Amino acid sequence: MKVAALIMAGGRGERFWPKSRKSTPKQFLTLTHSDRTMIQSTVDRIRPLVAPEDIFIATNKDYRDLVRAQLPEIPEENILCEPMARNTAPCIGWGAVTMRRKYGDALMMVLPSDHIVLQPQLYLSVMRSAMAVAEETDALVTLGIPPASPDTGYGYIQFDTAAQTAHYNAFRVKRFVEKPDLETARQYLASGEYLWNSGMFVWKVSAILREIRSHLPDYEPVLEAINGAADRPEAEARAVLEAEFPKLRPISVDYGILEHSANVYVLPASFGWDDVGSWLAVGRISPANDMGNVIRGDVVTVNSTRCIVQGGDKTIAMVGLEDTIIVDTKDALLVCAKDSAGEIRKVLEILRAVNRTELL
Amino acid sequence: MKVAALIMAGGRGERFWPKSRKSTPKQFLTLTHSDRTMIQSTVDRIRPLVAPEDIFIATNKDYRDLVRAQLPEIPEENILCEPMARNTAPCIGWGAVTMRRKYGDALMMVLPSDHIVLQPQLYLSVMRSAMAVAEETDALVTLGIPPASPDTGYGYIQFDTAAQTAHYNAFRVKRFVEKPDLETARQYLASGEYLWNSGMFVWKVSAILREIRSHLPDYEPVLEAINGAADRPEAEARAVLEAEFPKLRPISVDYGILEHSANVYVLPASFGWDDVGSWLAVGRISPANDMGNVIRGDVVTVNSTRCIVQGGDKTIAMVGLEDTIIVDTKDALLVCAKDSAGEIRKVLEILRAVNRTELL
Repeated sequence: MKVAALIMAGGRGERFWPKSRKSTPKQFLTLTHSDRTMIQSTVDRIRPLVAPEDIFIATNKDYRDLVRAQLPEIPEENILCEPMARNTAPCIGWGAVTMRRKYGDALMMVLPSDHIVLQPQLYLSVMRSAMAVAEETDALVTLGIPPASPDTGYGYIQFDTAAQTAHYNAFRVKRFVEKPDLETARQYLASGEYLWNSGMFVWKVSAILREIRSHLPDYEPVLEAINGAADRPEAEARAVLEAEFPKLRPISVDYGILEHSANVYVLPASFGWDDVGSWLAVGRISPANDMGNVIRGDVVTVNSTRCIVQGGDKTIAMVGLEDTIIVDTKDALLVCAKDSAGEIRKVLEILRAVNRTELL
Repeated sequence: MKVAALIMAGGRGERFWPKSRKSTPKQFLTLTHSDRTMIQSTVDRIRPLVAPEDIFIATNKDYRDLVRAQLPEIPEENILCEPMARNTAPCIGWGAVTMRRKYGDALMMVLPSDHIVLQPQLYLSVMRSAMAVAEETDALVTLGIPPASPDTGYGYIQFDTAAQTAHYNAFRVKRFVEKPDLETARQYLASGEYLWNSGMFVWKVSAILREIRSHLPDYEPVLEAINGAADRPEAEARAVLEAEFPKLRPISVDYGILEHSANVYVLPASFGWDDVGSWLAVGRISPANDMGNVIRGDVVTVNSTRCIVQGGDKTIAMVGLEDTIIVDTKDALLVCAKDSAGEIRKVLEILRAVNRTELL
């Protein structure tokens, strides 16, 4: 069966300020020691499974040029520019009708553009299994990460330990749960029945459209209207898209569809995954030096440990620091205690309040 | 009596890196909220007592252009460029013979160029008293700061509480002591007989030259040789200086002369003095904002307190920081825990070791 991928790249992540900006969010950055940006790595990773002309990028129109510059191998018509951010269900619905028009049916991978995979070979192996399950069972298949800790930053997937597929390490999903509190997360971890929701999915185009019809019936006429105009002249197609897309209720695919579907499988997947949710992830993913610091750039260290430094074009000297994040860019510098990484968004609130839009 | 001042500006302070550099040490910088550099403020402060043509600047030849640029009112021939740093006694000896040649005799003020005075009116009042004592008694007069704490970073002056001058609040000095350990400093503070050595002096030119003759007799022929050549063509005068100056034993005026003299007075002096010994002093001297931060530049603060920030030309965001020093310059950035301020020199050691001379 034809294999196609939809990479979701519309995010405007604020948690990597000052390196990520509204004009250049996380997925277009190199945050680790790689020389490829996160979206480039996402494409590199699936290339053994999908040809470039079968890869679609769903993004915001502000990022069209970034996508073209970073992914010149992707055909321009495969860049789906959403008129506005409406969460994942609208984006996936549009992607699915687009693939149906092009392929009839296909295996559709849905992938975030801003996650890290440290073991790409294991990733491919799991993905091949997921594709096989999706093709054989007609189900919605999701990848779940075995939790390493009772993390309250992820959604969790409860699976039925007794309901495994015949040939693959896939389990029927009982339910999706939103980010839990710490006590609940501890119970999830202890039960052995929960996986982190990675946001990576595989299904047939026909399967997801069928599920949309069942669980988001109001989507169908809108998606058909958008799809029906897609082959018309560009301005017309765009006008229909701009008029129709906002009618799609903003909801995630997890809670709009997967949660209600009886036919969802999860594959436990371990391939060095990280969703790179904050600067702390950079410290987790990247190799630390002898002093326990993760450093990029020209940095002089005196008695400093467990720091994360992303230098710009000047020398940075750290003296007597612990657990500190330093990020230097052309026009803004962040110095942040690790345990305050969650408050970086407050900097952006302040900058917005005083109209320093050039720094957002 | 004619009043002249010798301002000592040869220091190469490393403790204000990265703002201070070998090419622009502390005395040529603005470290507080003032818009005048420290050496400019030093001159401003004594201007009610001394005319610009009677102010001499002792410095290193590398800083001649800085002195001329920052103090255009000082005649060029008053800039005494030492061939090498030899501590304060050689510098003061050269200054004294220079003044003798110009004035015969004079009241000579000797002043560091890199201290802060918060109450200049009080400073003038104390200085006038010191001048009167020096003129009336023929003694060496020094200003001593009543200690605010058992600080181990200063030299101390023990004075004879029973031996006060007739008309002024000046006391005969018993002895000078080097930087003490904490226990000793505590005893000094408790005794009420000790003052911090400010490094500011007043004496007659004739008095200091007489004391040099007594206590540093080997200086006399050297100083006379330098002085004898001073009115010859510049290249000749310079050649004699370069040959003779290095013969002056490097020693401080405190330990080379004052410690051995029987005729030394100290004036307890309180005028908001700080020797600005490290970045911590900037936090001490400058007004803090509501959050207890001392900030210069474009800084966004989130949950941060007791920090000292000197911004450069970019926005700095601090998140969750306490007691941290941030200094941003064009080519180098320092982030330093306050209690590690003493280790900034280690950064310079590392930079020297790897030949990053452009950053020193």
